[in-house]
Amino acid sequence: MSTDQLQSATHEWQEGFSLPQDLYRDTDVFARDIEALATSQWLLVDHESRIAHPGEYFTVDFGGESIIVIRDKDNSVHAHYNVCRHRGSRICLEKQGSVRALTCPYHAWTYDLAGNLKSARYMAQDFSAAQYRLNSCNVRVFKGLIFLNLAKDQAPSFEGFIARFEPMLERHDLAGAKVAVRQVFPTNANWKLVVENFFECYHCKSAHPTYCSVHDEMKMLAFGAGPGSSDGLASKYMETFNAWEAAERLAGRQPGMFADGPDTPYFQSAGRLPIGKGNATESLNGKGMAPLIVKEREYDGAQTGCVFNPVSVLLANSDHAIGFRFNPRGPRSTDVEVFWLVSKDAQEGIDYDPEEVKAMWTVTLLEDKTITENNQAGVCSTSYRPGPYSAQESKIAEFGSWYTRLIGLNNAAATCGNEHIQPYG
Amino acid sequence: MSTDQLQSATHEWQEGFSLPQDLYRDTDVFARDIEALATSQWLLVDHESRIAHPGEYFTVDFGGESIIVIRDKDNSVHAHYNVCRHRGSRICLEKQGSVRALTCPYHAWTYDLAGNLKSARYMAQDFSAAQYRLNSCNVRVFKGLIFLNLAKDQAPSFEGFIARFEPMLERHDLAGAKVAVRQVFPTNANWKLVVENFFECYHCKSAHPTYCSVHDEMKMLAFGAGPGSSDGLASKYMETFNAWEAAERLAGRQPGMFADGPDTPYFQSAGRLPIGKGNATESLNGKGMAPLIVKEREYDGAQTGCVFNPVSVLLANSDHAIGFRFNPRGPRSTDVEVFWLVSKDAQEGIDYDPEEVKAMWTVTLLEDKTITENNQAGVCSTSYRPGPYSAQESKIAEFGSWYTRLIGLNNAAATCGNEHIQPYG
Amino acid sequence: MSTDQLQSATHEWQEGFSLPQDLYRDTDVFARDIEALATSQWLLVDHESRIAHPGEYFTVDFGGESIIVIRDKDNSVHAHYNVCRHRGSRICLEKQGSVRALTCPYHAWTYDLAGNLKSARYMAQDFSAAQYRLNSCNVRVFKGLIFLNLAKDQAPSFEGFIARFEPMLERHDLAGAKVAVRQVFPTNANWKLVVENFFECYHCKSAHPTYCSVHDEMKMLAFGAGPGSSDGLASKYMETFNAWEAAERLAGRQPGMFADGPDTPYFQSAGRLPIGKGNATESLNGKGMAPLIVKEREYDGAQTGCVFNPVSVLLANSDHAIGFRFNPRGPRSTDVEVFWLVSKDAQEGIDYDPEEVKAMWTVTLLEDKTITENNQAGVCSTSYRPGPYSAQESKIAEFGSWYTRLIGLNNAAATCGNEHIQPYG
Repeated sequence: MSTDQLQSATHEWQEGFSLPQDLYRDTDVFARDIEALATSQWLLVDHESRIAHPGEYFTVDFGGESIIVIRDKDNSVHAHYNVCRHRGSRICLEKQGSVRALTCPYHAWTYDLAGNLKSARYMAQDFSAAQYRLNSCNVRVFKGLIFLNLAKDQAPSFEGFIARFEPMLERHDLAGAKVAVRQVFPTNANWKLVVENFFECYHCKSAHPTYCSVHDEMKMLAFGAGPGSSDGLASKYMETFNAWEAAERLAGRQPGMFADGPDTPYFQSAGRLPIGKGNATESLNGKGMAPLIVKEREYDGAQTGCVFNPVSVLLANSDHAIGFRFNPRGPRSTDVEVFWLVSKDAQEGIDYDPEEVKAMWTVTLLEDKTITENNQAGVCSTSYRPGPYSAQESKIAEFGSWYTRLIGLNNAAATCGNEHIQPYG
Repeated sequence: MSTDQLQSATHEWQEGFSLPQDLYRDTDVFARDIEALATSQWLLVDHESRIAHPGEYFTVDFGGESIIVIRDKDNSVHAHYNVCRHRGSRICLEKQGSVRALTCPYHAWTYDLAGNLKSARYMAQDFSAAQYRLNSCNVRVFKGLIFLNLAKDQAPSFEGFIARFEPMLERHDLAGAKVAVRQVFPTNANWKLVVENFFECYHCKSAHPTYCSVHDEMKMLAFGAGPGSSDGLASKYMETFNAWEAAERLAGRQPGMFADGPDTPYFQSAGRLPIGKGNATESLNGKGMAPLIVKEREYDGAQTGCVFNPVSVLLANSDHAIGFRFNPRGPRSTDVEVFWLVSKDAQEGIDYDPEEVKAMWTVTLLEDKTITENNQAGVCSTSYRPGPYSAQESKIAEFGSWYTRLIGLNNAAATCGNEHIQPYG
Repeated sequence: MSTDQLQSATHEWQEGFSLPQDLYRDTDVFARDIEALATSQWLLVDHESRIAHPGEYFTVDFGGESIIVIRDKDNSVHAHYNVCRHRGSRICLEKQGSVRALTCPYHAWTYDLAGNLKSARYMAQDFSAAQYRLNSCNVRVFKGLIFLNLAKDQAPSFEGFIARFEPMLERHDLAGAKVAVRQVFPTNANWKLVVENFFECYHCKSAHPTYCSVHDEMKMLAFGAGPGSSDGLASKYMETFNAWEAAERLAGRQPGMFADGPDTPYFQSAGRLPIGKGNATESLNGKGMAPLIVKEREYDGAQTGCVFNPVSVLLANSDHAIGFRFNPRGPRSTDVEVFWLVSKDAQEGIDYDPEEVKAMWTVTLLEDKTITENNQAGVCSTSYRPGPYSAQESKIAEFGSWYTRLIGLNNAAATCGNEHIQPYG
């Protein structure tokens, strides 16, 4: 679809309704989405415990790209495009590994861990190795969490991106964590249907019995998908919440909560909420599953949610944290990639059982996979028209505005904060 | 392909020859085909015995759409698009089932069987449920046969569509029948190659030994694919036919036969013909396989064929009938969906064996699948040129004219009968 | 991509570098490639031992076409498009077989082995069978090797195409050979990546340990992918080579070598080189594997390589020869089809073991498959830029020039020799 056609489709769309059909299925729209996300956002990709030692690497897929994330001898973390500068071969063929240098398996061009070309046989006299270092990708580490940005020129400021999460995660020792288990949920649906499903709890009651058995019902109505997710439905819950917040303050803890509006570059939010039902952590039975990762050294029964951007989310409990990465693979295909973190001193089989750690969200995400795929099927019907959101879907009503502006199809006056992150003028 | 390109390709086509290559493989042509068939035709989809009781439903796929066909409490039959008016999720996930209401599995929006929205939580004050009833699809039942039309505005008159088949099927108690067995033959070929194969018996001799063992050879030459299928090849058969017809009239039966020309909206035909070779019914050994479904209560050795339109066909024998639905799935993919009807009082395993009932046509349709897929492969060659039809292919010579006019690519002066069924001006 | 867009992409390309990304993945480019190769080249497809007797045939796939290659009663070899002139069905459904006539399985139109229509039932009075002979394809046999050209009008001169290989292959009795074994290596990469990989030995050291264990190291550096494959790296090898060549001449043999530049129609080359390391033939252990196919009746430890064009290659040893056919299947898919020839008098299991005969190149081509697929993956990255070739890749530097001119995207003044082989003005 041309930009004109897209703009016309978008103009017929009303805020407060789901998106027009083509935005959920068109190939050109998908290409715009990938470009916009890659250049304007810092994408949460993994935890640095995966590359604890120099030479260790893993590869990240995003929109047809493969990126090598590798630890250098000085312990710094680099990200390189997994593309040899000679004739374009992939360099790392495995998802992860450990190397002394990055040697292309095709013609043995060899790069150091920082991406400098160190060896290439039989090149011309005037060949300048300096011109052929690996293309690098922007990478930052925050409390052990690795973020990538694929802007070819200037990346958005990481400090501006991450600043507000520092106090929110102050109590959690994420840098001292490790990945206990990971799982991918391949989903035959557009990434925006996946994201919209994640950011509303209107469907929890009908679709997630297990999730509902763990969380406080009134909390789910008020803040089911985090701060700002339910417009005007909080009243019945606020008494409980205010009492909990007062107790937190008495205990010297600063709970905190914020939620960006749609006219912001990253549409971030964060908040700390009690799980409810007397549960210590977000497990199937509400009981702890692993050594604590919080400073306090006691279960506080609360969870800190961090939405770095709509495709990068972290949920931190007293004994474990969960990273979510919504990875667009095609117009109707998304990988939901999840990693569970526990204390790096915890011993598998003794201190925690990975199957138990991942159980609650695995059940929930498998349910979400089914839901979202059925949504995709129906959205492609000629009879589909954008439908109205309920009060419990206010976060995704805003997401529609944020997203259409992100890809340059929303004319509403808004400044994006980072001027260079408007890939389509 | 643009309309101009298609029109140019079609202009080079001569009547009496197979169609130009692009009409058998192009994606845009396929989209036009789907739109034209869906809006201009009443499509035979199933038999109402499948939904005998209130709340029973099945889903029909047509061109990317999913339609719910459901029986209401007052016994009427509705057809709804399987798309929730909230955010577009599929509502019915199974091919068939029984429900008390249509509840979307995503957010539990609930509709009654007639498609009225009865429940939706937390919607805005000014939300009007009446604006969000399920989108309905045109549906009619004739002698137990269910037909759908997907026109968004006015459907063609069903009475005009079905009138001439009433006397033809008068003797068969189809409303008192049930589906004994059904089978789908997925075929990697354009639906027009499938239809063309079905409407000529020029290939019977070389490709269908079983079919030939059941049917009179001279009849196959004269009327092998029904009335009008063999131009000028009837002479040797007419003596036999006239004698049979005279005997039918003596017995008080009005055989009847008609065949529309290509300038008609539905290209219908029907006719009653003896099977031949002394066979009672169209079975592998020519003998009866199930209790009679005709009034006369005796085998008459004849078969009534009804072509409602080129994708909707019924063959009615003394003891069973067969419904054929040619369902286009993609430019090179068609599902041939077949259901066999027997008397609803017949007991499976006692009065009939489903394997026996379906055997003759299953053999024949599997042969057709192979034939048609090889036709598709060759038609895609750069060396393919439309070839001339034999006298035994006169029905499909007309089909080419009917079809090109249907999708608006045949400029021959012709009125379509139903002015609103010309989807492309 | 439009021709303008392609030309613009190509203009940014520098000779001496790998090709621009789109040439390795674009669908329209692929269609141009197929058309250009089919019409301008004689394509090596098989050896005539496969159709030793009249009526024997095999089918060849090329770019969506299926061609029947068949031996007639007078022993001549014909090639016909596998498309019935009636309605376009495939005629031969098997990869190979033996027939008395070519009868279409659909409606039994029957052609003689030369493609003349001999029988078609019930056609109109004015039907002229002469107008409906099978479309023929250009075919030539050279020393048992079968070549096809799919030009619809005039094919390039086969004599001009083949002349220089006559003396090169004079000592090998290829017409007296038979196919011992064949294998297909389906490769998920553009055919040009496959060809580029085949025509340089820069990767041999890092990727082909088995191949390196058989061949002389200095030879691989000098002539690893045949004459003209390593620009200026021959010096260390020339002493060995000159001594060998002198001995050959003394023995009355004329080694010979030639390599076309990129401004020629077929980019041909050929050369005779010692294998080295004292090896008698190109086997895993360097020892003979089958009865000799050379006149001399002794192992001479040398190999004759013939590049008929970049997708048609033959390697001839003293006891066996190998035919390579690089068959483009899609923008990112190529079948590497290989057949091994031995003397037709040799008996399988007694005189040779097919597994042994194919072992060396099977190992090597499986390695190449992996390499080339990784190359395709990286070439599709947004970070890919054409990279510079080493001195050991000079043949494929020229290939880039030849190829871009072949598909009409290289403006360099050059005459193609055969004026009619410029499919795109």
